[in-house]
Amino acid sequence: MSNSLDSFFHPRGVVVVGASHDPTKLGYGVARNLVHCGYVGGIHFVNPRGGTLLDRPVYTSIASVPDPVDLAVLIIPAPAVPDTLRECGARGVRAAIIASGGFREVGPEGLALENACLQVAARFGIRLLGPNCIGLLDTHLPLDTTFLPPPTPSPGDVAFLSHSGAVCAAVIDWATGQGFGLSQLVSLGNQADVNETDMLAPVAADPNTKVLTLYIEGITTGRRFVDEAKKVTQHKPVIALKVGRFAAGRRAVASHTGALAGEEAAYNAAFRRAGVIRADTNEEMFDWARALAWCPPPAGRAMAVLTNAGGPGAIAADAIESHGLHLTELTADTQAALRALLPPSASVRNPVDMLASASPGQYAQSLRLLLADAAVDGVMVILLPPPMFSADEVAEPLVPVIRDSAKPVVVALMGENLIQRAAQLFRAAHIPDYRFPERAASALAMLAQRGEVLARAHWQPSPLPDVDRAAVRQLFSAADGGSRPFMTQAQVERVLSAYGVRTPRVELARTAEGAAALARELGFPVALKVASPDISHKSDVGGVLLNLGDESAVSDGFMTVLRNARAARPEADVWGAHVQRMIPAGQDVIVGAVQDPQFGAMIMVGSGGIEVEAVRDVAFALAPLSREEADYLLESTWAGRKLRGYRNLQPADRDAVIDVMLRLGQLAADFPELAEIEINPLRVLPEGEGTVALDVRAKVVA
Amino acid sequence: MSNSLDSFFHPRGVVVVGASHDPTKLGYGVARNLVHCGYVGGIHFVNPRGGTLLDRPVYTSIASVPDPVDLAVLIIPAPAVPDTLRECGARGVRAAIIASGGFREVGPEGLALENACLQVAARFGIRLLGPNCIGLLDTHLPLDTTFLPPPTPSPGDVAFLSHSGAVCAAVIDWATGQGFGLSQLVSLGNQADVNETDMLAPVAADPNTKVLTLYIEGITTGRRFVDEAKKVTQHKPVIALKVGRFAAGRRAVASHTGALAGEEAAYNAAFRRAGVIRADTNEEMFDWARALAWCPPPAGRAMAVLTNAGGPGAIAADAIESHGLHLTELTADTQAALRALLPPSASVRNPVDMLASASPGQYAQSLRLLLADAAVDGVMVILLPPPMFSADEVAEPLVPVIRDSAKPVVVALMGENLIQRAAQLFRAAHIPDYRFPERAASALAMLAQRGEVLARAHWQPSPLPDVDRAAVRQLFSAADGGSRPFMTQAQVERVLSAYGVRTPRVELARTAEGAAALARELGFPVALKVASPDISHKSDVGGVLLNLGDESAVSDGFMTVLRNARAARPEADVWGAHVQRMIPAGQDVIVGAVQDPQFGAMIMVGSGGIEVEAVRDVAFALAPLSREEADYLLESTWAGRKLRGYRNLQPADRDAVIDVMLRLGQLAADFPELAEIEINPLRVLPEGEGTVALDVRAKVVA
Repeated sequence: MSNSLDSFFHPRGVVVVGASHDPTKLGYGVARNLVHCGYVGGIHFVNPRGGTLLDRPVYTSIASVPDPVDLAVLIIPAPAVPDTLRECGARGVRAAIIASGGFREVGPEGLALENACLQVAARFGIRLLGPNCIGLLDTHLPLDTTFLPPPTPSPGDVAFLSHSGAVCAAVIDWATGQGFGLSQLVSLGNQADVNETDMLAPVAADPNTKVLTLYIEGITTGRRFVDEAKKVTQHKPVIALKVGRFAAGRRAVASHTGALAGEEAAYNAAFRRAGVIRADTNEEMFDWARALAWCPPPAGRAMAVLTNAGGPGAIAADAIESHGLHLTELTADTQAALRALLPPSASVRNPVDMLASASPGQYAQSLRLLLADAAVDGVMVILLPPPMFSADEVAEPLVPVIRDSAKPVVVALMGENLIQRAAQLFRAAHIPDYRFPERAASALAMLAQRGEVLARAHWQPSPLPDVDRAAVRQLFSAADGGSRPFMTQAQVERVLSAYGVRTPRVELARTAEGAAALARELGFPVALKVASPDISHKSDVGGVLLNLGDESAVSDGFMTVLRNARAARPEADVWGAHVQRMIPAGQDVIVGAVQDPQFGAMIMVGSGGIEVEAVRDVAFALAPLSREEADYLLESTWAGRKLRGYRNLQPADRDAVIDVMLRLGQLAADFPELAEIEINPLRVLPEGEGTVALDVRAKVVA
Repeated sequence: MSNSLDSFFHPRGVVVVGASHDPTKLGYGVARNLVHCGYVGGIHFVNPRGGTLLDRPVYTSIASVPDPVDLAVLIIPAPAVPDTLRECGARGVRAAIIASGGFREVGPEGLALENACLQVAARFGIRLLGPNCIGLLDTHLPLDTTFLPPPTPSPGDVAFLSHSGAVCAAVIDWATGQGFGLSQLVSLGNQADVNETDMLAPVAADPNTKVLTLYIEGITTGRRFVDEAKKVTQHKPVIALKVGRFAAGRRAVASHTGALAGEEAAYNAAFRRAGVIRADTNEEMFDWARALAWCPPPAGRAMAVLTNAGGPGAIAADAIESHGLHLTELTADTQAALRALLPPSASVRNPVDMLASASPGQYAQSLRLLLADAAVDGVMVILLPPPMFSADEVAEPLVPVIRDSAKPVVVALMGENLIQRAAQLFRAAHIPDYRFPERAASALAMLAQRGEVLARAHWQPSPLPDVDRAAVRQLFSAADGGSRPFMTQAQVERVLSAYGVRTPRVELARTAEGAAALARELGFPVALKVASPDISHKSDVGGVLLNLGDESAVSDGFMTVLRNARAARPEADVWGAHVQRMIPAGQDVIVGAVQDPQFGAMIMVGSGGIEVEAVRDVAFALAPLSREEADYLLESTWAGRKLRGYRNLQPADRDAVIDVMLRLGQLAADFPELAEIEINPLRVLPEGEGTVALDVRAKVVA
């Protein structure tokens, strides 16, 4: 199935198999839309009953359809689809949209039919969209292969790829009322052949598409999606609405990292790596899409607000700050120029309140001044129909000012009936308008985020040269992954050591006397930890004692941790206790890695200890990771930020933490059989002194 | 100004002073709206030029206006307002809406005019709305005193009180397109006399008002607002959009509590106490208002989703869970009944997906089954126009099922053109519809929250009998609040002791030898803390040493903490060091109290230590607080939740923490001069063993 998808997007002729005379049938809808949309290639209908439809002949077989024809739309009962595909293949069709339902979504029989379709498609080199989809739509070509009732969407700049045909239908209808058009729409259905990842590059190649929006319920080819999406996001924004957050089953996990590394963490990490912006709601996605399609990204997060009323200005100020932007301080020159332009009781500080008397000229001139101010990265214009002018009278002179600006401007156009004509003016000029300042602020914030996506585009993990893969491979092949998935302390430490992660010298004592002797050799004070391949969280069973200062404390302690462990876990195999010298004070973090089923190796960093899941001060990234992304992860957690020092907390060796993150990430990426590995805590010593992995656990799967 | 506000809401006659013939003037707009709105009382116009307007005489003076007249609307230049008010008073007018601007908002001269108005009003017993407002509107009476251009809002169930006239105008216009009406609208303007708090009870008394919505930029009479709003919220929901979050200046503070107790924390605490629901955006506020006006609150948070398409169902499921509701598991009976009703490939588990073929009858019957299921507290119906039926054909049989139900049902009616008639059907039947499942889920969540507000209505702080106010009063009157606002350690401990909060015995040592002797007397190990009235955060200056085990450690330690403190704060007055016995292990929390300028005493509880501001695991309430609210605060922080035990963390004396919160709250409420008091950490011992205030600080203002 390596054939191009080109016939979906640029067909020379389309055949509708199952075209119907009955206006209540979907087969009529497809024929109607194809004819009415203005498609200029060949349009052919097939139905065994023959006749004419919409002034065109209806052929009784696919074989008799004349040239040109390379795309078929099948809207026939599911059982007939495989044979029909075969006829399509014989006729030279290169691409087929199977609109019909009745496949995988209805059970095993349907799945068998779907597989039969795939076999036929493979034999003839046909690419399949669907089944169980509403097809594909290009408003500019134009081409409409859907059966949806009119009106069709107006031509626009936003492409929409969707795992749900129903969401396509709703978005198409809803978009018409929101004043934005679509460029292309692809309903992916069951994705028997073509999936969202396959469609990214072809849709992004469409010159009419300025922004890609995705509705997705899951991604099956995780890393390929990340790679493909990353290529696209370097030149066009991609926004995704991913649902199914709460449907994901809980996995059995053995570490804090595993417990927190759910599907959500993986998708967020993957979207960040790919430069995909994630939306939480449909409205948010399309609010952002319009702004991203029509406005340049701002150079920074310093925003100005221009308003003719105080209340909306206050709403805008709050919304701007709450979205992580800030209200800039206007330069003295700008304030003076505004002062000269506006009435004395106007406010010339940000938000600039021109008062209800603001004229169209004052609006345009004030906006020009704000955009010329070097302290301003972007502007929100609030337009509440003023008492003395209509909203469109104000909008008219604003349009050229906004279109000529290299800085983004979004409009909060407040009201409904009184702003209709102004809204049309703005939309025609490709200026995004929103009913309330809150949504306009959200769009401004997304423009800033898009700028940051572009600034991160060069982040690239570089392979670590000084790791000993062979040593780890040997350890893993020796590890008894089946019956006893947890590696021993010593094994984990050898693995870490092969990847350059320091662990303290730890020795196993099998008796109380042995523990005391080891402690004397290592130097006091020491820590004791129960040694058992069956006990993962040692402190949970009272299996850890710290700061033991002399031999008698060590030998007593040995008995205590063994007794505690046996009491808590009578079934556990207990080998004795590990003895190690106490490590100097410092800050503690957790660093862990897991394998995500969709996206592979992921790394986590954050606040460690035993409260990891409760405190949730952690951040995830795909592994291996770049130094820049490691730095970004640290900055997104409090545990990471405080490494720079906080109050009487001394600065710690932040670079050494990044080094451990890179090494652990490389390890997890190199060895998919390493299901989980976790350092908790990683003791971070003062600057320049490195880190020590105080406690480690790892799980290997066969 | 104790007169009733009744003349605003039930005037027998209205006079428009400044009524104008010029359609571009606001004075024309007021006259036009008053006549066109259908107001049945007396309508009178005054303008020195006389003549007729809208077929009515224009009087040249207020004195010549005939009866009845008790409400005046003034739309004349600001300087003329005081004299005009005087004439109104002489004519027997009881209430005046000053629509004109040019008062406090333009500077000192305007403020003087505003004060002049207040004096006249006081003399004649006139209540004032405004100035600088757009007046008052009652769609049911009807009465429209605004100058806003048509269309006027349609009659509805939602009242809107606003500090911004501009937001009123936008909301009125916008609401018409959103399919909901307003009952009353009050634009409060500069609030020279009447403010939002005054208006709560009269608006809530309106039988047509089902929900009150507020746009507020600040509240000046904090506790009175809480009291008035609490009375209202026990029978009608109140939703507030409060802006100005980021405008509030930073206060100089000396404690973690003070640093975190900003205006936002105070408003959130006040709203919770008052039962007011806080919205973040205008759209959210009115989305919620419709649901609260039209639906009963659910008995719990268990929701069902009924859909005819999988994608929207998945969106709904995510949104429901992310709003803190959950998808319930339907009973076997319900599933069986749905199975009998729906096609085999339909999903009869929640979300119930009837598939695109769902008929109007299946919709209605399935919803009936869901509503009859005892496991279901509320339902979201997703209606995407199906291929075979129109949305209104589906809506029609749904309406009576929803109207007859005692459980709430919200509708996600997806699309735009194809759903217009269905939207009208739902709105006419007072069933809230939303374009996307995300917003419908938010409304369902708010219905659940309303149920919880009602359940909390009985929470009532009860005064603590065993506190010694006189002792504290004496201490405060002795405290040197001016030059040295921090109380000494010993003073704070006496204050706490008078309110029944345990502190460890602490003694001041002035020399190293004295410290050693005290330690021997108190018992080892001990802690040492530098004693200085000028050093608030002692550990920040290296002024704390813990766990000193013998006399030489204590005498060395004494020299160390003094040296550290002097090095860090050469200007500080250092008295020596406090010696106390080390306290047993346990969990630590912070409990603090401050005085908020608007709402008075507030209490804070949460994660203590030095990272309080960074970790922000804290919760606030107004003080004094009820036992139930103290419990609620603990549950809303991790520090509070883990008092019940977590992994190997032993359960701690949670009740004792609540006791300290009640006592500290009572103390702060009793003594407004106690600007800040903070226990950090409060050591919480194992269950039944109480708490110990390990470190305390307090600041008193003169």
